[in-house]
Amino acid sequence: MNPLFSFNARTGEPLGEPLATSTPAQIDATVQAAHAAFDDWACSSGAQRAALLRHLADGLEAQREALVALADLETALGPVRLNGELDRTTFQLRRFADMAQRGEPFAVLDDPAVAGNPPVGHPAMQLHRMPLGPVAMFAASNFPFAFSVLGGDTASALAAGCPVVVKAHPGHPALSRLTFEIAERVLQSLGLPAGLIGLVQGAGVEVGVQLIRHPLIAAGAFTGSTRGGAALQAEANARPRPIPFYGELGSINPLIALPSALAARGAELASLLAGSITLGCGQFCTNPGLLVLVDGPETDTFVPQLAEALGALQPHPMLAAGMRKAFDTGVQAFIDAGAVPLLQGPGTGLAPGPQLLQVSAQRFIEAHALREEVFGPSSLIVRCDSLAQVQDVLAAVAGSLTVTIWGANEDTAEHRALVRAAMRIAGRVLFAGVPTGVAVTAAQHHGGPWPASTAPMTTSVGDAALQRFLRPVCLQDAPAWLLERAGRPC
Amino acid sequence: MNPLFSFNARTGEPLGEPLATSTPAQIDATVQAAHAAFDDWACSSGAQRAALLRHLADGLEAQREALVALADLETALGPVRLNGELDRTTFQLRRFADMAQRGEPFAVLDDPAVAGNPPVGHPAMQLHRMPLGPVAMFAASNFPFAFSVLGGDTASALAAGCPVVVKAHPGHPALSRLTFEIAERVLQSLGLPAGLIGLVQGAGVEVGVQLIRHPLIAAGAFTGSTRGGAALQAEANARPRPIPFYGELGSINPLIALPSALAARGAELASLLAGSITLGCGQFCTNPGLLVLVDGPETDTFVPQLAEALGALQPHPMLAAGMRKAFDTGVQAFIDAGAVPLLQGPGTGLAPGPQLLQVSAQRFIEAHALREEVFGPSSLIVRCDSLAQVQDVLAAVAGSLTVTIWGANEDTAEHRALVRAAMRIAGRVLFAGVPTGVAVTAAQHHGGPWPASTAPMTTSVGDAALQRFLRPVCLQDAPAWLLERAGRPC
Repeated sequence: MNPLFSFNARTGEPLGEPLATSTPAQIDATVQAAHAAFDDWACSSGAQRAALLRHLADGLEAQREALVALADLETALGPVRLNGELDRTTFQLRRFADMAQRGEPFAVLDDPAVAGNPPVGHPAMQLHRMPLGPVAMFAASNFPFAFSVLGGDTASALAAGCPVVVKAHPGHPALSRLTFEIAERVLQSLGLPAGLIGLVQGAGVEVGVQLIRHPLIAAGAFTGSTRGGAALQAEANARPRPIPFYGELGSINPLIALPSALAARGAELASLLAGSITLGCGQFCTNPGLLVLVDGPETDTFVPQLAEALGALQPHPMLAAGMRKAFDTGVQAFIDAGAVPLLQGPGTGLAPGPQLLQVSAQRFIEAHALREEVFGPSSLIVRCDSLAQVQDVLAAVAGSLTVTIWGANEDTAEHRALVRAAMRIAGRVLFAGVPTGVAVTAAQHHGGPWPASTAPMTTSVGDAALQRFLRPVCLQDAPAWLLERAGRPC
Repeated sequence: MNPLFSFNARTGEPLGEPLATSTPAQIDATVQAAHAAFDDWACSSGAQRAALLRHLADGLEAQREALVALADLETALGPVRLNGELDRTTFQLRRFADMAQRGEPFAVLDDPAVAGNPPVGHPAMQLHRMPLGPVAMFAASNFPFAFSVLGGDTASALAAGCPVVVKAHPGHPALSRLTFEIAERVLQSLGLPAGLIGLVQGAGVEVGVQLIRHPLIAAGAFTGSTRGGAALQAEANARPRPIPFYGELGSINPLIALPSALAARGAELASLLAGSITLGCGQFCTNPGLLVLVDGPETDTFVPQLAEALGALQPHPMLAAGMRKAFDTGVQAFIDAGAVPLLQGPGTGLAPGPQLLQVSAQRFIEAHALREEVFGPSSLIVRCDSLAQVQDVLAAVAGSLTVTIWGANEDTAEHRALVRAAMRIAGRVLFAGVPTGVAVTAAQHHGGPWPASTAPMTTSVGDAALQRFLRPVCLQDAPAWLLERAGRPC
């Protein structure tokens, strides 16, 4: 088993002694405590859930300075981004608090009895939603607040009435521990059981595998690599009793810049795009990794503009030394598969330089290797000879969190076909701006066909994330006392 | 590859020559035709979808006599049940037609732009639902109409905008063909592509496996055994690009008869229960296979009443000779695992006699083998010494389509705990009547934790079945022309 270290992300040096890895007995005890807390928490009121979530948000804000400093040390993401991410995290906690307070987890679909024989006649039925049980939450490396210990998965699961056992990401173990200690104090101050929010950690895969295999775990939520997510999903399915597994995996986020858009404001778009490709050192699941361009003079003008805008930017160091290595390997694999480098920023130390590559649509469609996600500040231009070929490129991508289309401003048959092709493979289709930056709203859908998500009908960001942890249960001919309790036998 | 025969279910004799098994080329051509029909059908209006579904219902009714006669020959389910099932099937088709006509597949969640910086500010977003694409539909043996060629899965997928390729069940191949020919004529009469509804068939597993592996298949829907469903789900997950798989598998449907209910009307309940256990020769996914009773004088009186009521009933022959054999094997496995037979109806030919067995709660919780579904007219009594032990029995069951509780008429802490335990493992909890008979309504939930379903958040019966085939897609900053088209680029 690998030892668990906290690393300085800018130097790659370990910060102090190795941290404790959760033992099998500790993991079991943490899940048992979550299970023990489940029955009461499933019966908690919306106000009780809201109070917990709001106190967690307050607790994070009260320690903002220490949290951001430690996060910056372990991730190198910088204080501006990290303060913004902390804002988003507390916003999420309070938004799910509001939903719980409004009673959304307790919504009932009432279906009164209809007299007569079937199929028309039927008994009185009511549809409720039951929290699933303890959720195993696998934190992401690239959002040390918003997709980590007290991130959106934890907030939505708690709002739904489920305890959570967090598998901390080994990329920021000290921050995970500090965040967890805030949660522990909040639970204690509210007189809630410590088992409601658990934490396990370790550098290797063993801890996560033991967690998802635990018979008392009722669901999994994961944000990370396709390989890691697929492995955990396979574990979830291989259990004697498989459980729902919500994995948000890799995505290459095609961005289609049509000639009309480039003609109108190519230079401005080049600058916007260069910023999106390098934002957070390209370490976003919505990073635009694929630029789909149509041959013509506008594209010929745009590509060097983009290369120049990109070349002027030097991203900050990556989250971890291993990621830098994986980034270089990924870029080289593209070159080996036939992509031509247009810009090869040299980078410095753990900070890679921006990379821009180009390949023909035909080659892209042939070569599976070119559809892999390269996590970091890199993008691959795919040159198409027609809008029809753009559709073929999208079909080859097959699954993505987002597709962005610039320039489909007129209602033409070609634009409609292009939008249909985009909607067929993506969870979100943008017509302006860049895909990085995922709003926490009612209509957000952060998911998509494989490999974007293991559960493309669900979202890990936005209000509907709550529904992942509630299972419909129909009550038929419920007795009067249960109806008076609105279907909650608590 | 096994040859495909139509069998007389009452005699086990083949009806004529072997039927053609779909070749790999035919399967591919059927899926290709479905794929070719997808883009247009996804763009069809609610009125167009409703017209197709209503004409399919009309087409079934126009041939009711021939369909029921052929179904009876191949399944032995009898004309009363089969006419009722045909009514349910046309009811489903028309109900999904109404939903399509009302525009339910095209519902939009509008999320206007909010000014300001994130996390509060966000662009204009709209949530739509996209049909998934061609659906592979695996028909069930035990519902030759309602879960077969034009059953609920097909109706809901078509209403959602998805073409369907049906894998016919080999238990009623001639009926499947006759039903399919009705569909073919309806499609032709409406000028719709034949590819919208395809049929493939074969006696072995090869045809189904090739179908679910086909790269142009976008989802699977299955009703049948745990083994068969788990194998197909594994295939769906092993694809280079996994797809959603909705499998409704085995269920043992615990029925808890509390002493108060038995004291009030034990004889009447014994008769009701005996009818439910033997209905359709016990070949229902909601058949009450587990009777959970609490030790005491009421139970001591009830058990012989039930054995007597059951012993007076002789079920009709099973759907197929292989099922009869599996039934006998399943009952024997229970005896081998420690269950004591209370009634061993001898049966005649392919018609099994009713079986009633009994075991202690402790033994039931220890022995996994006693939690297997025995498909047929059999039920296992589990004797508990307390209501707390009833909860332990439910926890051991872990997943079921239904749980029925008789006698929880007062609001007590014990009853509330029991209902919570039931809601934790079931998709539907009944407080009166028997679980057989699944109403097609808005609040129905026909699904549950494994092994009841591979997708416990979804239902295969009722209005929400439609949602299985629609994937959320968020449109961000959609252009005016697309908003004018209500987000449908058609």
